[in-house]
Amino acid sequence: MAGTGRPGGVVRPTLAVVGATGAVGTVMLQILSQRKDIWGEIRLVASPRSAGRKLAVRGEEVEVVALTEEAFDGVDIALFDVPDEVAGQWAPVAAARGAVVIDTSCVFRMEDEVPLVVPEVNPHAVRLRPRGIIANPNCTTLSVIVALGALHAEFGLRELVVSACQAASGAGHAGVRTLREQLSLVAGTELGTSPGDVRRAVGDNTGPFPEPVALNVVPWAGTVREDGWSSEEIKVREETRKILGLANLPVAVTCVRVPVVTTHSCTVHARFENEVTVDRAREILATAPGVVLCDNPAAGEFPTPVDAVGTDPTWVGRVRRALDDPTALELFVCGDNLRKGSALNTVQIAELVAAEA
Amino acid sequence: MAGTGRPGGVVRPTLAVVGATGAVGTVMLQILSQRKDIWGEIRLVASPRSAGRKLAVRGEEVEVVALTEEAFDGVDIALFDVPDEVAGQWAPVAAARGAVVIDTSCVFRMEDEVPLVVPEVNPHAVRLRPRGIIANPNCTTLSVIVALGALHAEFGLRELVVSACQAASGAGHAGVRTLREQLSLVAGTELGTSPGDVRRAVGDNTGPFPEPVALNVVPWAGTVREDGWSSEEIKVREETRKILGLANLPVAVTCVRVPVVTTHSCTVHARFENEVTVDRAREILATAPGVVLCDNPAAGEFPTPVDAVGTDPTWVGRVRRALDDPTALELFVCGDNLRKGSALNTVQIAELVAAEA
Repeated sequence: MAGTGRPGGVVRPTLAVVGATGAVGTVMLQILSQRKDIWGEIRLVASPRSAGRKLAVRGEEVEVVALTEEAFDGVDIALFDVPDEVAGQWAPVAAARGAVVIDTSCVFRMEDEVPLVVPEVNPHAVRLRPRGIIANPNCTTLSVIVALGALHAEFGLRELVVSACQAASGAGHAGVRTLREQLSLVAGTELGTSPGDVRRAVGDNTGPFPEPVALNVVPWAGTVREDGWSSEEIKVREETRKILGLANLPVAVTCVRVPVVTTHSCTVHARFENEVTVDRAREILATAPGVVLCDNPAAGEFPTPVDAVGTDPTWVGRVRRALDDPTALELFVCGDNLRKGSALNTVQIAELVAAEA
Repeated sequence: MAGTGRPGGVVRPTLAVVGATGAVGTVMLQILSQRKDIWGEIRLVASPRSAGRKLAVRGEEVEVVALTEEAFDGVDIALFDVPDEVAGQWAPVAAARGAVVIDTSCVFRMEDEVPLVVPEVNPHAVRLRPRGIIANPNCTTLSVIVALGALHAEFGLRELVVSACQAASGAGHAGVRTLREQLSLVAGTELGTSPGDVRRAVGDNTGPFPEPVALNVVPWAGTVREDGWSSEEIKVREETRKILGLANLPVAVTCVRVPVVTTHSCTVHARFENEVTVDRAREILATAPGVVLCDNPAAGEFPTPVDAVGTDPTWVGRVRRALDDPTALELFVCGDNLRKGSALNTVQIAELVAAEA
């Protein structure tokens, strides 16, 4: 590693955050400021129009530099959170200049020579990266995979049905801004009771969403793929299979956008090879790294987005055994889509890579 | 039938609406005013504190009378939408006085001698009612059962996994009021980004919900039942089995409250006895009574609550075949929980009973 010499002789790796001004990039800087500081320089990189802005990280103001080849000089690890086409172009550039790239886009995730890593589930995969690129899963995959990985290790996952309630920030700053603007239009009104009244109030202000999200739920995220499936739904299926090493796992996912700022929530129906018990499932979840079990409905305890937002773990509740199938569990899972769903997982991968040195 | 003589000699049955001032009762009066008028007197009945209020039905102001035994004198059919304990006490009273009771509560639904009726699915069941009581299913069951019934008739339903996004009005007027008050508290703020900020803003103003519903989704509806299941989830399972005549159908349901005023939305994973095709499923849904197929994601067409609210049909979209199971379909279904989910289905049953005469 290039890195930075420090008193005591420990070489601290240089980290670049590419896309530092975005919704996920902003959270990356918060997380880097909160976790154990193992880094030398932290370089902030963004599009040329953001160059020169100053952003706070580790209590210091750092000037953003433009995305160029030279921006990667001396960089050991580069976290990328940029649009797919930018990642596709620039991640190989950074890797060619010697940085290990950890990329949140979907461009490289399913490539054979790129590991797709969740540190709590498949940390070993991080070491085999012939292209110098490690991929970070989709936020919806990440909202369920830590809990599922723990249960899979014990019971053997055999089938998965997921209904995902996706937060507005899954569509970035624009998604949050759109939700807030729409909420201001419908709050204090009697809207939501006749066909299209919310649609008329919102008008063209649907931002990145195909339909109004205030007072609504919208069963669509991503682009149209084969046979009526959305790209987001296909991603969760393919990525879950790759991370768990279950190439033929049956996975059925439906993505629904909900008027929540941040934190995806998933209803999960998971069938296993072996009979499950709720008691054992709760034991596993209560002790799994990165998971918090929050499951006592009689006491009003179950996870919700307004409590999970801004926190690191995957929150799991509503743990039940299917009444008609002793091998199936029902779960309700909440995870902050900007933290574990993206920025946190990326930083965790970077820490794994840094620890190799 | 007692009924009212009219010129031409047709006897028009007398209808009572019990619980006329509630969220569902209000919609019953709208629906009775919109549909073909087959009724003689329409008598409005409510708790003594609402007696004397005047409500509009069929373009006329009608005075609400208090719930007493005499309120059922001369009544042919009584629609009940009242709390469970009131229904349990008064439905048998009305039936004993000769009225056919159609009850929306959960008190009688699973009793052997009470049919549970969805006119598009099991209209024949209406005739066998030894206790003079017909039950109306739960709003969540009703939001999916018309579409499922049509598909079951062709493919043979074998397993069902449902994730229900339930609207605030499922908890009555108080639910809607609570949602609107909470939305006013969070609109125009930056809330929803740190743990508990929405909870603190909302304070004790959670109304009938266990947690804030603004900027949130809450995986709970009903009361605690065995093994972590909620009463609402158990109801959907039991009622679906009874209506479809599939006593052993495996059904796994999770109910999640969402910040929508009215219209429940369900993500459905349905496995059938036989192989399914999306084309045939769409044909069935496009021609099924009470169903509108709205399914062209490439053109931005899928059902959402803000379009389905205030309408009668069950809206179905996102029809896909499971990628790993040729016998399973995925659907996204929206239905107005106050109309087809309660008031409309009740009125439709009443029309079936009236047609017997």
